[in-house]
Amino acid sequence: MSRVATLVLVGAGLLTSGSMTAPRFTADNQMIVPEGYREWMFVGANYGMSYNDPAPGQVTAKPGTFHNIYIQREAYKAYAKTGKFPDKTILVMEVVEPATKESINKQGMFQDRYVGIEVAVKDEKRFDGKWAYFKFFDSEGKLVPQAKAFPKEACWDCHNKNGAVDNVFVQFYPVLRAVRSH
Amino acid sequence: MSRVATLVLVGAGLLTSGSMTAPRFTADNQMIVPEGYREWMFVGANYGMSYNDPAPGQVTAKPGTFHNIYIQREAYKAYAKTGKFPDKTILVMEVVEPATKESINKQGMFQDRYVGIEVAVKDEKRFDGKWAYFKFFDSEGKLVPQAKAFPKEACWDCHNKNGAVDNVFVQFYPVLRAVRSH
Repeated sequence: MSRVATLVLVGAGLLTSGSMTAPRFTADNQMIVPEGYREWMFVGANYGMSYNDPAPGQVTAKPGTFHNIYIQREAYKAYAKTGKFPDKTILVMEVVEPATKESINKQGMFQDRYVGIEVAVKDEKRFDGKWAYFKFFDSEGKLVPQAKAFPKEACWDCHNKNGAVDNVFVQFYPVLRAVRSH
Repeated sequence: MSRVATLVLVGAGLLTSGSMTAPRFTADNQMIVPEGYREWMFVGANYGMSYNDPAPGQVTAKPGTFHNIYIQREAYKAYAKTGKFPDKTILVMEVVEPATKESINKQGMFQDRYVGIEVAVKDEKRFDGKWAYFKFFDSEGKLVPQAKAFPKEACWDCHNKNGAVDNVFVQFYPVLRAVRSH
């Protein structure tokens, strides 16, 4: 019976905790593009969002893009329970071009063409400052299969100063806000 | 060994197919508000979207809301594999009020306050026309715990005529489009 019980426990463990997708890196510390993230936990979307003022003379923002933000389901569950993002957390921001007035749509924007992803990774041993930031598409929207981390002043400084929780812009992600508000 | 093998198979079955959240109804055929949908599969968001023309004299659409659309993970997997939505599929559209110019945001809209959900359900035996449509918040944005289906002319007719696949607006949901495009 002990053998049977062990197998049941292993099965239950797989079912409830899964194995969290870990970030992968090359020997020279480039991150390899994560896969399967559309099946992760969605935490919020935004449209046309920018942290910069409009350019002088620019009346309205240029046609914006959507961003959809995902996190591994296991990292989400840990955050929901503890309010902390575990080591090896990956946040994926997928950029999506909008479209309008197609099919029966008359107003507003729906999500049309995928452009690519930007990624935030928490790896406490690998990165000075725990988090690093990566972009997996080039200026022509072509997939980049592996990428170097941005220099700290490009992303980390602002995330560290303004992220509501541990370098993460929880203030913009309604699912993360809601799960800790009760 | 056969006993052990059986247990392993049961474990694997649970792990891969799960048990799909089924729609629940009252004795008088009202739907009970679904729960836990934010952990389902996200298939797309839109902003300010409407199938109606702007009102006469209305230059821009009124400040729009975001919609986030979710489907049970098992229904998603079935659709990804077969191109068909299984019986008991639930699509949840969560309405989210936007906000802007908070924290470091300077342009564009992020998702701020949850308003409520509208739901499409496929139940081949229960509904004439297989699908029915429900709204779980009132005009003041208050949660309605159970709801009657909309009359067919309010939702079903348009979904049936214009939904790209089986009453579903797949054309507006990039995850559903992408998973069947290869």
